[in-house]
Amino acid sequence: MLLLFDIDDTLFPSTYFSQLSRHNAINAMIDAGLNFPYEHLKEKLDTIVQEKGSNYPYHFDELCKQLSCKNPSKVIAYAVAAYHNTKQSIRTFPSVKRVLLNLKKTHSIYVATEGRAIKQWDKLLRLGVSDFFDDVFISEDLGTPKSEEFYRRILQRLNTVPDNVVMIGDNPTKDIAPAKAVGIKTIRIKQGKYSTIPSNADDEISSFDELLSLF
Amino acid sequence: MLLLFDIDDTLFPSTYFSQLSRHNAINAMIDAGLNFPYEHLKEKLDTIVQEKGSNYPYHFDELCKQLSCKNPSKVIAYAVAAYHNTKQSIRTFPSVKRVLLNLKKTHSIYVATEGRAIKQWDKLLRLGVSDFFDDVFISEDLGTPKSEEFYRRILQRLNTVPDNVVMIGDNPTKDIAPAKAVGIKTIRIKQGKYSTIPSNADDEISSFDELLSLF
Repeated sequence: MLLLFDIDDTLFPSTYFSQLSRHNAINAMIDAGLNFPYEHLKEKLDTIVQEKGSNYPYHFDELCKQLSCKNPSKVIAYAVAAYHNTKQSIRTFPSVKRVLLNLKKTHSIYVATEGRAIKQWDKLLRLGVSDFFDDVFISEDLGTPKSEEFYRRILQRLNTVPDNVVMIGDNPTKDIAPAKAVGIKTIRIKQGKYSTIPSNADDEISSFDELLSLF
Repeated sequence: MLLLFDIDDTLFPSTYFSQLSRHNAINAMIDAGLNFPYEHLKEKLDTIVQEKGSNYPYHFDELCKQLSCKNPSKVIAYAVAAYHNTKQSIRTFPSVKRVLLNLKKTHSIYVATEGRAIKQWDKLLRLGVSDFFDDVFISEDLGTPKSEEFYRRILQRLNTVPDNVVMIGDNPTKDIAPAKAVGIKTIRIKQGKYSTIPSNADDEISSFDELLSLF
């Protein structure tokens, strides 16, 4: 079989690490002399991230501007360093490496992920799994977000039919519904922020090592 | 006295770390599948850095473009990660922290550096000395590159006369000549790429701990 894996909240707890990164960044800004209560800064930052999107590169600059920081360069440098230190220390969910290497003995394994290509590659690298996969498919490279078209293009690239392919991911609307709609078998892993949202997946598991019993 | 310190090649071996960062980035690109000899990649990259300037953020993208990389996102992600890992592991020259903390008992200490403010703050943070200084003066914040005007503005900000101030740095044309021209006492530390270039400094030392005998 050809197994496609999502990255975020499938291979590693991305929601958790994003929150932790912002948490550490806010504490670093306070440490750099930004004299506001943690909760106030968190609320402001969350609003900025929501308004500008998570890929906007100047969240902390914007926060400093809104709060008229006294020493913006220092505060932003502290925030960015704390944020990146945390982002760079990401680790996989338990068993992920062992399970992937095990599956790799009898199947071909691929990444199928949405996002900016360099950022997604960076995650694979930091997680220590970037050399595990036979190929990596990223929405930015394929030219379409995760949708039926995204999965059709992967089938084309793999030169195969949907019956040979399984998609494994956490997101009911990105990983499961569109893959299933083009005939790919789907396994939903109940992790991260979508874990309580219903999905039409063919199988559901609650941790990565349950995959071994399915193949 | 009020002591002003340069950062690059004064507090830490910046020339060495820049070279090491590029060295590690090139090896990472080869590891990511970029099939060229090290020396060829190094030569190309050095040319790009020279042409675009060291603050240009897309050196590796440009290298990939010129070489028609097969998997540019992967190659660039590997390069950027290796580059940043190295840049983030900078360490001070021997004795720097001990000497600064010692001088701080009887003098006020400041940073006077050229560059982008956030990058210079990030260096201080990574070096573990960002809280040591009474204030930090960066050319970007002061609105002028290291020149007589730069030092005049620092004197204004410190509300003092040149006689009370000493500038310590490695660069004869940025740290020594213009500071001396406005009447500041200068100590030149013979480290880094300018170490063999003559200067008109009032004093010359060859390592940071020699400072203790001068104050």
